[in-house]
Amino acid sequence: MTGTGLFISFEGIDGSGKSTQARLLAEALQAAGHEVVLTREPGGSAGAEEIRALVLQGDPDRWSAETELLLFTAARRDHLERTIRPAIAAGKVVICDRFADSTRMYQGLSRGDLRGKVDTLHNLMIGQEPDLTLLIDMDPEKALGRAKARQTAEERFEDFGLGLQQKMRAGFLALAEEFASRFRVIDGARAPEDVAVDVLATVQAHLA
Amino acid sequence: MTGTGLFISFEGIDGSGKSTQARLLAEALQAAGHEVVLTREPGGSAGAEEIRALVLQGDPDRWSAETELLLFTAARRDHLERTIRPAIAAGKVVICDRFADSTRMYQGLSRGDLRGKVDTLHNLMIGQEPDLTLLIDMDPEKALGRAKARQTAEERFEDFGLGLQQKMRAGFLALAEEFASRFRVIDGARAPEDVAVDVLATVQAHLA
Repeated sequence: MTGTGLFISFEGIDGSGKSTQARLLAEALQAAGHEVVLTREPGGSAGAEEIRALVLQGDPDRWSAETELLLFTAARRDHLERTIRPAIAAGKVVICDRFADSTRMYQGLSRGDLRGKVDTLHNLMIGQEPDLTLLIDMDPEKALGRAKARQTAEERFEDFGLGLQQKMRAGFLALAEEFASRFRVIDGARAPEDVAVDVLATVQAHLA
Repeated sequence: MTGTGLFISFEGIDGSGKSTQARLLAEALQAAGHEVVLTREPGGSAGAEEIRALVLQGDPDRWSAETELLLFTAARRDHLERTIRPAIAAGKVVICDRFADSTRMYQGLSRGDLRGKVDTLHNLMIGQEPDLTLLIDMDPEKALGRAKARQTAEERFEDFGLGLQQKMRAGFLALAEEFASRFRVIDGARAPEDVAVDVLATVQAHLA
């Protein structure tokens, strides 16, 4: 089955289960006959993965908020050109774990009042939004416990602590109101298979 | 001798001898008692050097013009924050081999009509110009011969050929008119020691 291309992003705080949900949705849509590209940010193309490694590893103060914003935007531009747009043009469903909304949150809110710069830069160099954004929402205390249970070298954003995660949750919910036409908020504080049922129903409603 | 900080950039096409002139100027100013920081772009700080390696090595089509522009801007932001601004604030003379004018030329002119994006991005994320920019001007045919005589892994920009270098020379001269208050054009088609005399006299006139 070949459809018209569709661009879906997943957003949420660390440990919310959005990566698991992105994978489960990809499997369900593939089983239903869609061609699916499952990707993630930062990264998602060869060049963007190299930039990702540069940004996420090492000392948290290695880059200023502004430099980090530029590096993430460079990675996003590469990802968009090399992975996302060709797949959409070929009629595939692109499922992306994080996209520009994560930058609006992590750079725009948590590290200096950069939201204005984030928006100007996005409009100038990216200019693309997902058709549908699924916010996997959950209590930060539960989410932080999940995130800490994983062992990765990319702990920079997970080291910021519970207070910041609570601000992040509120910030994502505010983004969902700001971009209400493409955002859907999914309650993530349930068993993954129950969340996945909601996610698939939401996407099917959008496709119908 | 500690003076007020000064920010000098060298610009010019590949092989024009600007790097040699930057070094000779640094030596002359140090001999005259100035504290000098000699630096270069892309690069000039630890993080920016890593970004430089990412941009300049590999296939010429590895990055799009837009992604490359973002990476260069990220490197410049890091360089500015970690190297240039602290040195100026400490009263040193910063001599930089290439700065934003090179981006105006190489990304803004040679690879798509990006000059508008280059300027918007510069104003948004950099917002700093040198106090004095020395354009080492020379015939591209001579300059290309010099550049090809060097062996480096960073040949991407030197592979573009003579026709493009001629456009670059004209473009740099046009920038010198656009930013006439800080640009000085130096005839580079002479023995390096003769060019260096002109460069030093120009800088001393600015300092006086």
